[in-house]
Amino acid sequence: MGGSSFGVLFRVTTFGESHGPALGAIVDGCPAGLPLCEADLQRDLDRRRPGQSRFTTQRQEADQVRILSGTFEGVTTGTPIGLLIENSDQRSKDYSAIQQMFRPGHADYTYWRKYGVRDHRGGGRASARETALRVAAGGVAKRLLATQGVQVRAALIAMGHEQIDRSRWSWEAVEENPFFSPDPQMVPRCAALLDRLRQQGDSVGALLEVVASGVPAGWGEPVFDRLDADLAKAIMSINAVKGVEIGDGMAVATGNGSQLADEMVADPAAPGGVGFLSNHAGGILGGISSGQEIVIRLAVKPTSSITIAKRTVDVHGQNQQIQTKGRHDPCVGIRAVPVAEAMTALVLADHFLRFRPPQPL
Amino acid sequence: MGGSSFGVLFRVTTFGESHGPALGAIVDGCPAGLPLCEADLQRDLDRRRPGQSRFTTQRQEADQVRILSGTFEGVTTGTPIGLLIENSDQRSKDYSAIQQMFRPGHADYTYWRKYGVRDHRGGGRASARETALRVAAGGVAKRLLATQGVQVRAALIAMGHEQIDRSRWSWEAVEENPFFSPDPQMVPRCAALLDRLRQQGDSVGALLEVVASGVPAGWGEPVFDRLDADLAKAIMSINAVKGVEIGDGMAVATGNGSQLADEMVADPAAPGGVGFLSNHAGGILGGISSGQEIVIRLAVKPTSSITIAKRTVDVHGQNQQIQTKGRHDPCVGIRAVPVAEAMTALVLADHFLRFRPPQPL
Amino acid sequence: MGGSSFGVLFRVTTFGESHGPALGAIVDGCPAGLPLCEADLQRDLDRRRPGQSRFTTQRQEADQVRILSGTFEGVTTGTPIGLLIENSDQRSKDYSAIQQMFRPGHADYTYWRKYGVRDHRGGGRASARETALRVAAGGVAKRLLATQGVQVRAALIAMGHEQIDRSRWSWEAVEENPFFSPDPQMVPRCAALLDRLRQQGDSVGALLEVVASGVPAGWGEPVFDRLDADLAKAIMSINAVKGVEIGDGMAVATGNGSQLADEMVADPAAPGGVGFLSNHAGGILGGISSGQEIVIRLAVKPTSSITIAKRTVDVHGQNQQIQTKGRHDPCVGIRAVPVAEAMTALVLADHFLRFRPPQPL
Amino acid sequence: MGGSSFGVLFRVTTFGESHGPALGAIVDGCPAGLPLCEADLQRDLDRRRPGQSRFTTQRQEADQVRILSGTFEGVTTGTPIGLLIENSDQRSKDYSAIQQMFRPGHADYTYWRKYGVRDHRGGGRASARETALRVAAGGVAKRLLATQGVQVRAALIAMGHEQIDRSRWSWEAVEENPFFSPDPQMVPRCAALLDRLRQQGDSVGALLEVVASGVPAGWGEPVFDRLDADLAKAIMSINAVKGVEIGDGMAVATGNGSQLADEMVADPAAPGGVGFLSNHAGGILGGISSGQEIVIRLAVKPTSSITIAKRTVDVHGQNQQIQTKGRHDPCVGIRAVPVAEAMTALVLADHFLRFRPPQPL
Repeated sequence: MGGSSFGVLFRVTTFGESHGPALGAIVDGCPAGLPLCEADLQRDLDRRRPGQSRFTTQRQEADQVRILSGTFEGVTTGTPIGLLIENSDQRSKDYSAIQQMFRPGHADYTYWRKYGVRDHRGGGRASARETALRVAAGGVAKRLLATQGVQVRAALIAMGHEQIDRSRWSWEAVEENPFFSPDPQMVPRCAALLDRLRQQGDSVGALLEVVASGVPAGWGEPVFDRLDADLAKAIMSINAVKGVEIGDGMAVATGNGSQLADEMVADPAAPGGVGFLSNHAGGILGGISSGQEIVIRLAVKPTSSITIAKRTVDVHGQNQQIQTKGRHDPCVGIRAVPVAEAMTALVLADHFLRFRPPQPL
Repeated sequence: MGGSSFGVLFRVTTFGESHGPALGAIVDGCPAGLPLCEADLQRDLDRRRPGQSRFTTQRQEADQVRILSGTFEGVTTGTPIGLLIENSDQRSKDYSAIQQMFRPGHADYTYWRKYGVRDHRGGGRASARETALRVAAGGVAKRLLATQGVQVRAALIAMGHEQIDRSRWSWEAVEENPFFSPDPQMVPRCAALLDRLRQQGDSVGALLEVVASGVPAGWGEPVFDRLDADLAKAIMSINAVKGVEIGDGMAVATGNGSQLADEMVADPAAPGGVGFLSNHAGGILGGISSGQEIVIRLAVKPTSSITIAKRTVDVHGQNQQIQTKGRHDPCVGIRAVPVAEAMTALVLADHFLRFRPPQPL
Repeated sequence: MGGSSFGVLFRVTTFGESHGPALGAIVDGCPAGLPLCEADLQRDLDRRRPGQSRFTTQRQEADQVRILSGTFEGVTTGTPIGLLIENSDQRSKDYSAIQQMFRPGHADYTYWRKYGVRDHRGGGRASARETALRVAAGGVAKRLLATQGVQVRAALIAMGHEQIDRSRWSWEAVEENPFFSPDPQMVPRCAALLDRLRQQGDSVGALLEVVASGVPAGWGEPVFDRLDADLAKAIMSINAVKGVEIGDGMAVATGNGSQLADEMVADPAAPGGVGFLSNHAGGILGGISSGQEIVIRLAVKPTSSITIAKRTVDVHGQNQQIQTKGRHDPCVGIRAVPVAEAMTALVLADHFLRFRPPQPL
Repeated sequence: MGGSSFGVLFRVTTFGESHGPALGAIVDGCPAGLPLCEADLQRDLDRRRPGQSRFTTQRQEADQVRILSGTFEGVTTGTPIGLLIENSDQRSKDYSAIQQMFRPGHADYTYWRKYGVRDHRGGGRASARETALRVAAGGVAKRLLATQGVQVRAALIAMGHEQIDRSRWSWEAVEENPFFSPDPQMVPRCAALLDRLRQQGDSVGALLEVVASGVPAGWGEPVFDRLDADLAKAIMSINAVKGVEIGDGMAVATGNGSQLADEMVADPAAPGGVGFLSNHAGGILGGISSGQEIVIRLAVKPTSSITIAKRTVDVHGQNQQIQTKGRHDPCVGIRAVPVAEAMTALVLADHFLRFRPPQPL
């Protein structure tokens, strides 16, 4: 149980390192009859792809996904969907300097303690490159969810101390700036921040928000496999994420019950005829979707790959200084936006298939 | 896949509602040879048990756990451990008033949409009573972890706007006050807050911190089943939890890489000879334990069972007013402390068994 | 992963030994709305119960099953169903003689090598007593399958060299004799055989056949989780089973393709309008049900608990002679009939829930 | 849960159809430090590959496997191993005639009922071609097992009514004839049989035996995940297998307990100091390995792809006649030999990793 699979009925298994010949995924459990082609998946891959602006790593990867199985004449057949992305830009030499040292904040040390051997080229499986396949698999999930009227979107809502003004939220704007910010006025501030950080050789964290709309009431399970529990796992499994919130999140600790219970009213226009007067719960009650928008927030730490020198040890246990050269994102939170969408979509697709509408027996 | 199981190698499955004859759990995968008796489990059950102080629900449940299988002559045999707690105080009449109505903030509505039928007595499976078995099963996990020198403890660090002063942190204090607060000076402030809330018929949220010490480096998996991802799921699966943080948590969004990367130094006294100068990562890097303390925080929302009237709808879709009578905790976060310990212990016990020390092949 | 769970969506987990206070099971994933009461499960438990005739062990166990959760007002709620059977007749003293010895043909030696500790009373988890809970859980599965028009029945078709004449097959007869034989004329021959064996202190094997009727076409998965593969695992997991056949079974090795391919014809009376001219495949093609009857055969070895002396070793590795005293079945295959039905029903209920009817997306 | 994964800790997931661009597998959970290269896997692939003699299908497939991830400098890294085989010989035109018809004995009809859509080219996922990846993944398992002194070998012991003489059994012979027969004198008889069948346009079944030697006592689990239960599933999941036996198999039905209990004696030369005087149990007692050889037999049905005309229906439910043209094996049992080895090795590798040696806690 290497832990490389995710989901119960809509199940994704991935393989691949940043520096091998290719990365891949198997999506098992996608129902037959879903129209699907490579272009459906490529769009999100292009959103995640490095080198799209001067604000992300300049490493060049084509990230062209191929569908190797599971479709016939443009439609899924119900059998596993094999996905493959070849690695094109493997400059292993960039990494030779760190072969003997553990980069602070990276998984170098923990991998070495877990496995005893280490592919020191680019973080191996811990590389953010692994998330490309999550995005590809999540694209299949999004396609499936779309047939149910469910849409999953994410945005960057803060970068360091720069925050959006929610009154200006625009989903259109998200796709029109290199930061996936829903507030156009935040864009130049982010650009200035990143330019400054790059000069300093430093990096910065980010806050992201994922919104799933159109999810009907009743998805999820009551105890361990709660919809929010599975979402928390999905989101926390993304590289560099250190916090996950559903609805009001950490802020509920300071709230009162009289404020936070979302009141309900008869509403013929709402799904199921039941409307809510607020959404503190983020669309999930008792682990099961309520029919409201599902709202998730996540905090992404700044990359630890910085050119400022740091203290560390080498594989022989000796003290060393390290500076991480190479082509790195000053804010990995940017490219985490499509990854967070993908992981959310994987959870929802799984619980869509797990949901069994109440019916007479 | 009703989602009532948790863990891969150390696997817990639970059953039971608040108002049936009994609740139970099966712990499958506990190694043979572990000394285990009912008293080992009862201590944490007593910590979680209602009615222990005037600040929790006055519902009386003995919560006496019985071990029905899996031990012989005081030692585990390697076979599944059956645990049973009988329900003694089932006042179903308390709940008849809400038979036809959905309580806002509760799972009443979502269960009804998921299952089409509803055991309206006390929330059924969504009741916090279900967590008693998590605590019992977590007790087995704690016992197993203790053989590895691992200790899992939790504390309440904020209730509403009342917060601890970390400079006064005392693990001894945690066990000496009814709030599990590590700061004795916070105790009278919490007492006053809860007395005030009870008069108002209101409730309040809480912030908890879990610390696992003694976890060696190398536990966890690199991609989906990361140690932090599994912990996030475990914690978010607890009733009323809306946010989970590892290490610096949500605050990493505003940090810089130069501050947050935990520097490493040779330290003969540290496990593996490697010390860290800080612990922003909360003891987990790339999904794998680093040998530092694992630090988790969680936010627990205020109970939605309050006597202040709220708007809602009934099962016929008609608008109604509702006040939740009965015996409820004004701050469910208090009794969530042993539950958070238990869920953390379950994850760690599982990853202890999943860990395979590097060895020549 | 102690291996005490079975099934994906309809999932059973069991605990309990022959000599502890109780045995139990959790059935997770049963849909809400299924009428279910204890009497539904008791009927098969009584069929499996020892002491029903002079041909089975005279150990007395009431085998009264209690439903502890998952139903409300006579109907399942969708939450896990807790089942409990208390052990009433625990004569541990019977087993003290074999405390230090490994019984040949039993799991004594292998358990000891696996766990290092051993509950020597009655085989512990390897006892046939464990199958009582399979029968109880299988009863829930049968109830669920009945709503789909599916019926699972089994019979004993050979005991040693005594065989049925298939031309006399009667399902009614199966329930009217102590051997579950579908051929009434076989009954006195079996009785004579068992009386003779009991005098000799010996035991005998049996051949069983399970037939599932009403299974629609389309249940199963194509590669690893084939319906026949899951059935083979289910059946082989029953104590003392050493062989499993689907349809023509082992005999296909000597057949020709021209004989064994079941021809198909248009048949308005058949399910789906497609009839078959034979059923060599036993109702499963490519791992998926064809709509024909599913036919399984299994061979059950004679119990190794015999009073004829056998050579063995003790826990110190010394040579010994052993005779198994106590109350044992001369033909454990008899009581395996309801167990084989139960395991078959568990697989079918699981694949019923896994089946997703083809639908436009 | 499309059912395309197998195993718990050593877990294989496959994708790919006979007529897509490629087939692949992910082997997750293989420990780090195992020497592994493509040649290690190619040997068994070449044994399974069609066109190796005039007695198997003349379809030409290079079946060259590539390792895409999970190794570094010739050694496994502990991360998932991606395996890929490209399809080179996809003559889809061969299959156009059967596009509208269901071939009797094949999965055409059941796939259509399950999925509603059908990739009619060569059986899609039900094609024996899918087993190539099982052989590749099984090669990794064999390599891992070899480090524990475990060897898995299989042979064809009967083809139709032609049987081996066990007194002539030679494992060397198995690799020296195109039928994997351990009895050289059987070879010309099989050749004559197949030549005759080919003239008749017919096919024939086969009986195979798998022997795993070197398995220590203690592998397996006691209830559902018994070693024999998992082996039965693994073997029954192979295309065209209809029966599985462990040890004496179906023959135990006619045996007596006094004959079939394998007596034990002190034997300093045997593993654990315990020897057995016979092996009726096939090396497994109570679901756990005993240290003896594990012996499995399986019956493989004759291929249903024959040129003798058969009655069937088409997708419109009309009666039709069908002859399967194309390049087919007259005895698919031959090429099933390396597949049976591979599936056995997958189960054993999984239970090797699941085994936890008894140790003080």
